[in-house]
This record gives sequence, structure tokens and C-alpha cells, in this order.
Amino acid sequence: MDSVLQIAKRAREASYNLATRPAEMKNLALKRIAEVLVERADHVISQNAIDLEHAKNKGLSKAMLERLALSHEKIQGIAKGVYEVCDLHDPVGEIMESAVRPNGLKIEKVRTPIGVIGIIYESRPNVTIDCAALCLKSGNACILRGGSEAFNTNMALAEVIAIALKGSGMDEACVQIIPTADRSALNELLKLDQYVDCIIPRGGEGLIRFVVENSTIPVVKHYKGVCTVYVDKFANPVTADILTVDSKTQRPSVCNAAENLIVHADIAEKFLPQIAKLLAERGVELRASERAGAILKRSGIEFVKAAEEDFSTEYIDLIIAIDIVGSVDDAIAFINKYGSHHSDLIVTEAREPAEKFLNGVDSATVYWNASTRFTDGFEFGFGAEIGISTDKLHARGPMGLKELCSYKYKIRGDGQTKGKPIM
Amino acid sequence: MDSVLQIAKRAREASYNLATRPAEMKNLALKRIAEVLVERADHVISQNAIDLEHAKNKGLSKAMLERLALSHEKIQGIAKGVYEVCDLHDPVGEIMESAVRPNGLKIEKVRTPIGVIGIIYESRPNVTIDCAALCLKSGNACILRGGSEAFNTNMALAEVIAIALKGSGMDEACVQIIPTADRSALNELLKLDQYVDCIIPRGGEGLIRFVVENSTIPVVKHYKGVCTVYVDKFANPVTADILTVDSKTQRPSVCNAAENLIVHADIAEKFLPQIAKLLAERGVELRASERAGAILKRSGIEFVKAAEEDFSTEYIDLIIAIDIVGSVDDAIAFINKYGSHHSDLIVTEAREPAEKFLNGVDSATVYWNASTRFTDGFEFGFGAEIGISTDKLHARGPMGLKELCSYKYKIRGDGQTKGKPIM
Repeated sequence: MDSVLQIAKRAREASYNLATRPAEMKNLALKRIAEVLVERADHVISQNAIDLEHAKNKGLSKAMLERLALSHEKIQGIAKGVYEVCDLHDPVGEIMESAVRPNGLKIEKVRTPIGVIGIIYESRPNVTIDCAALCLKSGNACILRGGSEAFNTNMALAEVIAIALKGSGMDEACVQIIPTADRSALNELLKLDQYVDCIIPRGGEGLIRFVVENSTIPVVKHYKGVCTVYVDKFANPVTADILTVDSKTQRPSVCNAAENLIVHADIAEKFLPQIAKLLAERGVELRASERAGAILKRSGIEFVKAAEEDFSTEYIDLIIAIDIVGSVDDAIAFINKYGSHHSDLIVTEAREPAEKFLNGVDSATVYWNASTRFTDGFEFGFGAEIGISTDKLHARGPMGLKELCSYKYKIRGDGQTKGKPIM
Repeated sequence: MDSVLQIAKRAREASYNLATRPAEMKNLALKRIAEVLVERADHVISQNAIDLEHAKNKGLSKAMLERLALSHEKIQGIAKGVYEVCDLHDPVGEIMESAVRPNGLKIEKVRTPIGVIGIIYESRPNVTIDCAALCLKSGNACILRGGSEAFNTNMALAEVIAIALKGSGMDEACVQIIPTADRSALNELLKLDQYVDCIIPRGGEGLIRFVVENSTIPVVKHYKGVCTVYVDKFANPVTADILTVDSKTQRPSVCNAAENLIVHADIAEKFLPQIAKLLAERGVELRASERAGAILKRSGIEFVKAAEEDFSTEYIDLIIAIDIVGSVDDAIAFINKYGSHHSDLIVTEAREPAEKFLNGVDSATVYWNASTRFTDGFEFGFGAEIGISTDKLHARGPMGLKELCSYKYKIRGDGQTKGKPIM
């Protein structure tokens, strides 16, 4: 079995070559991955069955088993995703900026692959193919380390990728999967900053925290989403109803769903009972602050008393925490304090509080009169995404192919020297 | 004395306000810093004298003492630098990209400050004012932690900054200096990822390594520069002489000076003796590989035999390691293996090897026929720089005001929902 160090060294070697491959060659390899995946679907599914059996014996939840399970239909969907990545524009080599300096130097800032990316994820085996495709397309070698529950599935997918790379004249080391579910292998990988340029952990907060605390490689984090809807005193109440319900209930299990609702005091008496009923009808549990609770109580609406930590909790469930604020400034301060700097919304018809909110809320995405649920790479027109960064360095918000890139400066001269030339 | 935790919390609070301050207000504060610095120069110099006295007693080298020492002239120079930062364009609020999506959502990608930046540096006290100015201008709160040798100087500079901030209506917490030279304070700071967004260490490899290994906050690294000059077989030998001498000797103590010279085998017999003489005349020690040494020997030129590690050593001194390669591909492989991905040069008159080199060398800055010494923010037209990143995430190469920024997405809608609207 290859050691993690060998894998990382081979990835580094392969990355230099991959970085200069033309789009056509990368696309050919992507198409082969999709084809081989479908050809070998039976084998992948049989290996997936072994993982599912183990998972059942270990007593994994139904939701976890569903995430883990592959079917012919799911495999078709994964293959379709690879073809879509294939169709995207290749970001590598794009000239981002250029200038001619007074001394005649021609400077070009050119988009390049990052190099070697390590991706650490949990149960979903579709991540294996999705991430491999995005990294290949953006010219990055990748090292994938999936969860132990999907071990056999991932090894079968590793074979698919290796066959496809070989068949299209690419180095198999462009995509490698760590062939062990051992945590010590992860620990080893996280220290190999000489060979790996970036780590992207995809999974729960515990996994991300572990990676951050143990990695000497830069990490692009995808932490939780504690998103807030703020209904301003100048809100159109119908728009506020529609956007609050969509942000909270359209898909409560994802990071861009709303977890908090805060309402301007001037309209709370009228607006809160109305939205509370709409949410309660959709099975949403209401957790209200003292002030918000007093209003709900007077209207005879059931609620739970909120503790302070409720306002910084990611429920990813049909629960919403509710509070009242005295001004747009208070709303901004509330969100910067309790939110997770992900996606936040102001509902208002007035430009002034809206612009104040858009400027003052320190989040990756700030909305004026639109659902928080739009924060993703597809909705932004990126065509794909590897995740949603909650970091402020490198990439913030949805990460597409461009965000999987770095850049270099190419400088063309005709003999320019910093000092006086010697002849 | 304030704890590091209190400092970090206050910086985070101040950062929200600072992020929305207009350029005029930030410029006013910058001008006050320059003015107060000059007004209080005597006091700063008297505190600096205490540090110098300690440093002499501790037996610091002459070079270190020179770096530490402040004079009225140096202080004038630092103040001038602050005025120059003042005159630069404010990057905050720039619209980097914008799009209207098919559903009518207007998406703007807007440049924002990063938030709170921690800067860890060693002896030079000018870094205190330079970094404070760059962070303020880019809307970032900063926490500065200088070296113990400059402790009294830095505390006097902290007073200067505090007086200036107060006098211009800004929160003093926008720039804070950790008031202890204790290493435990640094350790504590490096774990406060809840309050600090980014760490920039400026100093030797040991300091940077310490920060990388102990920080849970993202670090933008400024590692060493092992830069290589490659003289291709199609090089104009005069251009090659001029550029090799400038890259190596114009200022050997800096990271963008060349440390390696590699020459195409086809021209080595003729070119090597000629450049070796020019370098030796300028006091440069030559460390030659076996093949390169054989040629030098035949010409009767003195040299030292190079060990493999010489080719990945940052001398920052009048020493150069020399080898011979068989092709531009070998040159690229040599640089990617031994170099530090900083600044590398090909000297050639032929476009094909030049473009191959510019694409294939995995460095922040790659030159065709110009000295490696141009890698800095001033030469690139940034107007200022906080350093030269050797990272590939966030910023690569010279870091100016733009590279001290993050971005956010502002999205303006008119009630768009992801699901079917409820009414």
C-alpha cells in the first residue's frame, strides 16, 4: 500500500504537468470518467452494498444510509454532473489583469491552478467524483480522503478514475484516494505542506475543526450557516412573509436556510403574529426572545422561550429563533454577533436601510429582498461549486472553478535591470 | 494590562465600524499618524535608545542594531511613507464583478476589508507604522506584535497611533499593539480564530514556521526566496551577463535576488567562464555542480564544489550555485524542485522556450529577459506592499492594498424565492 507521503509526492509531480494541459485533454479525461463510471456501475454498486451492510450493522441513521447509498439512477446523475463540468469554460490561463510599466516591463496576472488540493469529506460517495472532476478541470491534482463508511465504494470509484485517466493519456497521480480509513493517515496528510497547497474539508463542524487544528496546510473552511432574515419597518409585509417562509422552509437542511428572524420593533406587533402563523402551519418550531414571546403570547401563538445560544445555533431543521430589534443598526449588530457570516437578508422597500445593511453586515452574501436560499455556485452562474467558503481569505461564499485557482505574474522584458546595467 | 483576548475582541468590534468608514476619514487618521509621529519623534527616539542599549548588552549583531535604530531622518522617512499610503486609491467598495441572473437577481461582487489582521514581526520598528497604515487604509483593524528587542520603541509608536486615532475620531482599537514581548501572548493570539481573520508573519523562516504550526487562524506566508536565472541556448550572451549580474548582485540581501544560475549545455562551454569572471570580479562565491565545475576548472576559475542542498539554499549573500541543464524542460523541472516558487528568470531570444518557461515554472513571478529584482509591490505599481506572499491561496507574490482585502456578494432582488412563493 502506498504511504500518504508517497501519494503526496506523486501528486506534486503530477500537478506540474497537469497545470499546463490544454482544456481539450482535460475534457477528454472527464468524459472518460463519466463513461467508465457508467460502464462499471454494477461493480461500484456491489462495493457500495458492502459499505451499506457495514453501516446498517453499525446502526447508522436512516438519513446517513440514504446519503451513502448509490443506485444506477444516482450514478447516472453523477455522470451527468461530470459532463456539465466538462462543458464549463477552463479558467486556467485567463489573463486577469495586465499592465505595461514605465520601464517597459509587460506584466500579466494569469490564472493558474493552485497545484495539489486535499479534500477531506464524510459519507457521500458522490463527492469523490464531483471533486475529482472540478479539480481536474481547474488543473489541480487532488488527494481525496473520504469517510470510513464509504471506504469500499470510494476504492471502486478510485479504480474508475484511474482507468479513465490512463485511458486518456493522463497521469493517474492526478487524482488519488487515500487507501485507508485510518485517522493517522489524515493526520499525516495535514502536515505535508511541502507537497499539498490547500485542504478543503467538507463535512460537519467537528471534522472542520479537527482539520483546522491539525493542519499546517492552508485550509478553506466551509463552516456552518447561521443565516438571519431581518424584516425592516419599511418592509412590504407580503414580501416579508414570502421571503421568510422560503428562506426557512424551502429546504431547511442546508447551510443557506435561515435560522433566525429579527423584526423591527415598530412593526413587530402587527407582523410577528402573521408570520408566526405561517411558519407554525408549516411545522416550524418558534423560539422567541422575551420581547418577541410577549407579542406571540398575546396572539395565543405557541412558542418556546429562546436562550441566547439559540441565536447562534445552526438548526438545519424546522426551528427558527425570533427576536425584535430597534433599528437597522441593531439588526446589523445582531447579525455580526450571532450569525456565521454566511447569508443574511433585509426585507425593506427603503433604499437607505437596505444599503446600510448590505454594507454593514459582515457576511459572504447579503440580500435585499431575495431569499437566502440563493447562495450557491449554480445560482451565481458558476456552473458548479465545490462548496461555500465561510473564510474571508482566498474565496468567500460559493467556490467554483475560478476559486479553485491561484495566479502567477508573467513578466516580459527586454533586458531591464533594477540597478545600472553593467554594460 | 489588557489581555490578548480583550485586545482581539476589541479589534473585532472596531473592525465592523472601520469597514464602513469613507476614504476621507481613514486618510485623515493616516495624516494625523504622520504628524504625531514627527511631533513625538524625540520621545520615540529616547525609547528606542533604551532598546538599543539592551540590544547592545545582549550582544546583537551590528546589522541587527542598524535595523533597530531610529533617527530623526528615519522617522521622517516613515512619515513620508504614511503620506504615500494616504494618496493611494481606497480599494474598499470597488465593484469587482457584477451580473444580472435570469431570475432578475442583481449580483455584485464588492471588495471589502478582511476584518482583523494580526501582524507578527521581528526587530524593525518601521514595520509598526507601515503595517498600521496599510491596514487602516484597507479598512482592516490590526493587532501588531513586534519583536522583544524593539519593545519600548513599539510602545512609544503605539502611543503615537493611539493619539492620532483619537484625534481623528477613530476607535483606538483599530490599531493595537500587544503590550508584552512574552511568547505565550503570541501563542494565545494564534488561537483566537473567532476574532482574528488573518495572520501575516514578517520575519525569518523560524518565526514563520512557528506561526504556521501553532495558528488556527489562516496565515499568509512570506517564506524565503530561492530564485533562479536560466540562461537558454538562444540567449543573447550580453543580456544574460547583464541580467545575471543584476539579479545576483544589485542587492543580494533580499528575497528576490537570484541564488542559482543554470545554463543550457549547448552554450555552457562558452558562456560559463564569461559570466563566472563577471561574478567573481564582484566578489560572488561560485558553487558549481560537477559538470559546471569541470568547465570552470578548464578556464582556471576558482569555485567551491556545490552540494545538492546548495541549490535550495537562500544565501541572501554574495554566493551563487551553478548547474548545467540539457533543455528548457530540465530547467523548469530544476526550478520546480529546488526553487522556492518566488521569482525565476529565463534569458532567451526565442519565444518558444520562453513561453514554455513562463507556463511551466510554478512560481509567483516568472520573467522573460528582465531581472528577478523587480518582484515588489512598488515595481508592480501597487504603490505599497505589506510583503511578498509565497502562498498560492488568497495572495501570491507582492501584496498591496487589494491583497489586504476580501469581498462580499451584495444581491438585490424584488422578492425572488427558490421554491414556489407561498402567495
